[in-house]
Amino acid sequence: MIIKSKKIYTPLRIIDGYIKINDGKITEVTAGEPDVGPNEEIIDYGENVVLPGFIDLHTHGFATGSFTHERSAESVTKMAQALVTQGVTSFLPTTGADAISTIQGMLAEADVAMNDWTPEVGADILGIHLEGPFINKAHKGMQKEEHCIDPSIEIFDEMIEPMSIDRIKLITLAPELPGAKELIQYLNKNEVQISIGHSAATFDEIKALKDYGIGGVTHMFSGMKGFHHRELGVAGSALYFDDLYSEFAKQSGLTVLPEAVDLTIRIKTLDRITLCTDTVGLGQVEKSFYHYIRETTFTPDGDHIILKHDDGTEERLDKNSIEDMLSVEIGYLESVQNLMKWNNLDYADIMKIASENTAKYINVYDRKGSLEKHKDADIIVLDEDTNLVQTYVLGVPQV
Amino acid sequence: MIIKSKKIYTPLRIIDGYIKINDGKITEVTAGEPDVGPNEEIIDYGENVVLPGFIDLHTHGFATGSFTHERSAESVTKMAQALVTQGVTSFLPTTGADAISTIQGMLAEADVAMNDWTPEVGADILGIHLEGPFINKAHKGMQKEEHCIDPSIEIFDEMIEPMSIDRIKLITLAPELPGAKELIQYLNKNEVQISIGHSAATFDEIKALKDYGIGGVTHMFSGMKGFHHRELGVAGSALYFDDLYSEFAKQSGLTVLPEAVDLTIRIKTLDRITLCTDTVGLGQVEKSFYHYIRETTFTPDGDHIILKHDDGTEERLDKNSIEDMLSVEIGYLESVQNLMKWNNLDYADIMKIASENTAKYINVYDRKGSLEKHKDADIIVLDEDTNLVQTYVLGVPQV
Repeated sequence: MIIKSKKIYTPLRIIDGYIKINDGKITEVTAGEPDVGPNEEIIDYGENVVLPGFIDLHTHGFATGSFTHERSAESVTKMAQALVTQGVTSFLPTTGADAISTIQGMLAEADVAMNDWTPEVGADILGIHLEGPFINKAHKGMQKEEHCIDPSIEIFDEMIEPMSIDRIKLITLAPELPGAKELIQYLNKNEVQISIGHSAATFDEIKALKDYGIGGVTHMFSGMKGFHHRELGVAGSALYFDDLYSEFAKQSGLTVLPEAVDLTIRIKTLDRITLCTDTVGLGQVEKSFYHYIRETTFTPDGDHIILKHDDGTEERLDKNSIEDMLSVEIGYLESVQNLMKWNNLDYADIMKIASENTAKYINVYDRKGSLEKHKDADIIVLDEDTNLVQTYVLGVPQV
Repeated sequence: MIIKSKKIYTPLRIIDGYIKINDGKITEVTAGEPDVGPNEEIIDYGENVVLPGFIDLHTHGFATGSFTHERSAESVTKMAQALVTQGVTSFLPTTGADAISTIQGMLAEADVAMNDWTPEVGADILGIHLEGPFINKAHKGMQKEEHCIDPSIEIFDEMIEPMSIDRIKLITLAPELPGAKELIQYLNKNEVQISIGHSAATFDEIKALKDYGIGGVTHMFSGMKGFHHRELGVAGSALYFDDLYSEFAKQSGLTVLPEAVDLTIRIKTLDRITLCTDTVGLGQVEKSFYHYIRETTFTPDGDHIILKHDDGTEERLDKNSIEDMLSVEIGYLESVQNLMKWNNLDYADIMKIASENTAKYINVYDRKGSLEKHKDADIIVLDEDTNLVQTYVLGVPQV
């Protein structure tokens, strides 16, 4: 198959040319007109932009599937199906602070989803992001306090059993907790990337441990000791140390101001920023709950979810409709659109923080994250208004 | 007179050459060997570094003179004498939040000191920095709460009478207070530079008012609403807005961490940093007082000051000895040395933040702040260990 466009974004330049795809891999990316073989499919996207697919390293659930609330292989598969509508071509289903047995069960289910996965399903399931349970109660945020525990290699090993450690791509932990150093060394040896998050770590604590294998911080500014001029905290340390990445969660303008994102970009440069969603699949909650930021009560009702807003209005949404669920929680693409608008980023910038950096961060840049020969054909096409035209996962069209 | 050196720092390059001085002005700065006229004095500083003198825009007192504690023309003159030992060739005596009548009296005394000043006295007295009284009680720091008042053009005019407004070079105020906008507009029209300080201003408040004439912030990070990712505050706004200068007070490592200074430099670049001391002439206190940060009680005793430390030790220091007083409060030169060591700055960087930017900030760069033809011969010479060799004020050697 051949994809043509006047605007193909490769790591170093924007090409007016084509991408050849064979067996799910990119076999050629070059300028000019392709030689088209007999019966070879060719799609010309004209002025539309062709980018590497987005990689979401931090999502607990999205739209029609929630790993957090449903904890099943099917929920992970539904996330994969829903994510491609956002231009996301690969992702890490993400756990939280929970009972070890609960996490164990979730990983077993994710294992099934990963084993059964084919590119026809949706976004590629790259592995797992463990957000916790080795995090600090003092910065628990929405995590369950009773399940925030001290780091331990033994508990880690027990928790992931029988999943292979190769499938744990990323862990968020609090390095100031007792036992953290040993676990960090162990994880680093096993090529698990480590982010600081839900943490009260000081500058000195981070400085002392970072070279043992800490790559960056989770949801920059949230769930961490904030910047102070006499104690830089996690936020200030992330700003200070050039070698740490800062992950930003979905950009709704509510959690972190665009100006705070802008400052971080200016200090660290785009080379050290990653974009994720940190969505949970809010529409898939198991029981009625009140969301204090949204001033809304979410109540499940069979295939529907009822939203009772504090202002007295009410909505009844279809839990199996991606569109309905997008009104509950914004997706990756809307974050991208907001960043482009509010922070004046262009497609080359987005490519960096959504695809290149995310792939490099979890060490899959040899096969993901850019439009280059020999890489997976994870490709998205956007129109002039940044709307999604098509998503390809290993060359398979998704929408 | 001719000064020779292999390392003369001019705005664009380091010159191996000479400076010609005539009538207190620089008449030539150039590479090579000078033509020496008959009876013309020539001093060869060899490898020693020749820089423009430092400009301290924020000092309430230093060493043997305290404008804050003594409030006299003589105290300002003594500051001028002491400051040249620090490489400071011009300065702004600085008031604080006090009764209007007290400030009025202080300005009248400063007027006398300025009228009587000659370069033989010491550092050039460029005018006044009014730190308050239009500041926010909520961030008063060491200022007197009962004298923190709302901005008012009438009170301002009454307060500076009979000093000419031309001599007010800088004011620190809190722009969120009622009446601030009118005063800012009035001061801007009268060419008084305005810094935000002792302020709880929000990002939006600063954004709304800055273009009316706000130049920067006073003692960055201290006495201001700190950075938060959902409300940038004064600190975050100073980081965010390229056109605001950040003033740093004396660098002892206690008030603001070197890493916080480093971050500010990286975001704003050295072009928007100024260095001051914000010293008060601690040794000249009128009555016994306890300094909680130093854990020391200061008690005046005639020509001496007695320091009783909480650890039981005691010191008796000569109030008229600059050297003794330097053990009480560090000076401009030690701040420079610390910045060079901790923040890896070189002489060109120091020249920028201590001389060029400070001169530009209060609009005296036409005659101060750089070694250029037609400018005042305010020159310092430092040896390889950054010790002061000589200070010239309008060509007059001081030490």
